[in-house]
Amino acid sequence: MKKVAKKTIFSVKPYLPGKPIEEVKRELGLKNVIKLASNENPFPPSPKVCEAIKRATQIINRYPQGDCYYLREALAKRLKLDSNQFIFGNGSDELIVLAVKAFVGEGDEVVLAKPSFLIYDIASRIAGAKIKEVPLQGFHYDLKKMKAAVSSKTKIVFLGNPDNPAGTYLSEVDVQNFLKGLRKDVLVFIDEAYFEFVTAKDYVNSLALLKTHKNIIVTRTFSKMYGLAGLRIGYGMANKELIDILDRIREPFNVNSLAQAAALACLKDKAHFKAVLKDYIEQKQTLYKALTKLSFEYEESFTNFILIKTKQKAADISKLLLKKGIIVRDMSVWGMNHYIRVTIGTKQENKKLLNALEDVT
Amino acid sequence: MKKVAKKTIFSVKPYLPGKPIEEVKRELGLKNVIKLASNENPFPPSPKVCEAIKRATQIINRYPQGDCYYLREALAKRLKLDSNQFIFGNGSDELIVLAVKAFVGEGDEVVLAKPSFLIYDIASRIAGAKIKEVPLQGFHYDLKKMKAAVSSKTKIVFLGNPDNPAGTYLSEVDVQNFLKGLRKDVLVFIDEAYFEFVTAKDYVNSLALLKTHKNIIVTRTFSKMYGLAGLRIGYGMANKELIDILDRIREPFNVNSLAQAAALACLKDKAHFKAVLKDYIEQKQTLYKALTKLSFEYEESFTNFILIKTKQKAADISKLLLKKGIIVRDMSVWGMNHYIRVTIGTKQENKKLLNALEDVT
Repeated sequence: MKKVAKKTIFSVKPYLPGKPIEEVKRELGLKNVIKLASNENPFPPSPKVCEAIKRATQIINRYPQGDCYYLREALAKRLKLDSNQFIFGNGSDELIVLAVKAFVGEGDEVVLAKPSFLIYDIASRIAGAKIKEVPLQGFHYDLKKMKAAVSSKTKIVFLGNPDNPAGTYLSEVDVQNFLKGLRKDVLVFIDEAYFEFVTAKDYVNSLALLKTHKNIIVTRTFSKMYGLAGLRIGYGMANKELIDILDRIREPFNVNSLAQAAALACLKDKAHFKAVLKDYIEQKQTLYKALTKLSFEYEESFTNFILIKTKQKAADISKLLLKKGIIVRDMSVWGMNHYIRVTIGTKQENKKLLNALEDVT
Repeated sequence: MKKVAKKTIFSVKPYLPGKPIEEVKRELGLKNVIKLASNENPFPPSPKVCEAIKRATQIINRYPQGDCYYLREALAKRLKLDSNQFIFGNGSDELIVLAVKAFVGEGDEVVLAKPSFLIYDIASRIAGAKIKEVPLQGFHYDLKKMKAAVSSKTKIVFLGNPDNPAGTYLSEVDVQNFLKGLRKDVLVFIDEAYFEFVTAKDYVNSLALLKTHKNIIVTRTFSKMYGLAGLRIGYGMANKELIDILDRIREPFNVNSLAQAAALACLKDKAHFKAVLKDYIEQKQTLYKALTKLSFEYEESFTNFILIKTKQKAADISKLLLKKGIIVRDMSVWGMNHYIRVTIGTKQENKKLLNALEDVT
């Protein structure tokens, strides 16, 4: 069947996820393994979220709400948008795929930063797009060059904000300048998967831009701060015309019922996530200090992960850490042979990481 | 943005799901509403499935297993296939969409029965395919005409077995004859969503066909018999080369962790599902008898739903039933103006339906 499948499928290296804890335990025969590789929230869900899931379990014999009714209403109220400005996805990565499916065909172009979140590239290549990659400058987006890379064939520009793996963000001024003079029929896909971790005061208010720009979609996720990576739920916000286009190609029941119930419970559980954020900020500072002490260079991060420069090859150091039961992301896959990316874990996990880093370097 | 989106998106009427119970309660101000519209299992999950979900809730902060490792191994063992012959989907409808994405481009053709499950048509049209529809003959597939409809441009033939909405099935002889002389590079997509309900002895053993046919994929789901419609999980089985193609375009974490845990628990909970099946067979016979007594014609069904001929317009009778708190499927949407489709519910639900049918006709 390979001969009759679309050729573009084979032009892509499949996405390589962080190794699951269970798999590492099985393969290396280890009992204690921690995972700092996939930018997950290190804490299990709050009691309120567990309770919401338990309640909703009684209705899983029914198909989910296709429109995520209650969650949609809650988010619309909180974010002061119309309820028809939302689309929900099986993770926000599904919304990337849907946007590509709606707008990108063979020979079209998409513009993205290099390195950036891999799914932008993979989804676009499968659709047959030509990728215009614009290298980061000192780990920041080079928005001038990205705008210059937009041609008459460009359908989407992806802005990860903050982006993975660099962890840096775009400010209000950055984005405003980028939009000035940009064609109004190029989709600007602003991926705010790490939105809830950003503490910078000049971070762009992307939702305000939706009032004036029909070509912007902003996506967020419950996988990171809200700790629902395993349940798969993210959402996109845009002008209702754009939402309608994406809704037409969405599968009718793409978001499962327990994800909907858990996400709604997360929104209500403000005290819990305030504590999670406080802990994360403290842990980040602790890690910064300790890394400096160990003579590691790193990028200041506005996410829940840190990109660390390594003297050894990233592949080597990752393997050494893996043997000690610590899964980090070897950035060689992104072409960064002397970088690892580590998720900010719990206090105990971070301590284990720092001890191991001291050992192996 | 409509001007730059792909034109094919607007050629499709979006899928209209059965109305959710909550929505009908809200809209009509009703307290008691039953849903017999979406071919769901009427029972909440078994205690063992609830327990498995509760346990897995503790790991939802982590991304799911991308390969559904444990479920894959369990199914491979049970079905005597290699573990690399499986692909898992966010519902088996996702696998329909993936197959179309992998094989169908603008101007290609797909062959399907009319009426048939709507997603075959919708997914194919969005991809720009020309649809060759072959009308059912007395509610059965006309496989001779379907084979004759296969041209050099045909990429996929969809066989719903049993199919929705007719509820009839294809036998071993039917499928063997269909495959004889069919081009080996046309994908034959055998959708067995209702597999677990089929009691006919001459039902095709589709998995045996995988040994000799690299162009067949068989899909099944946990949404129907197993009662996990709200959790979204289905699977496909094929030659590993075909699986590899589809896996390349699958999102890496398309199946959530709780669905994986619940599905595994379903497979183990054999006694529960034996009882569910027994109950469903009894209820089907009860419904047949009562419908005959009420002078309704119906099709013998090998699924958990029954297609019923109505003297009144289907739209009218559906509305009358809705006012009484019973959601059924008005088949006008499929162009069948004098048919409703009802899911076999619990004993109490079926009684309520029969009473209501007596009232409104």
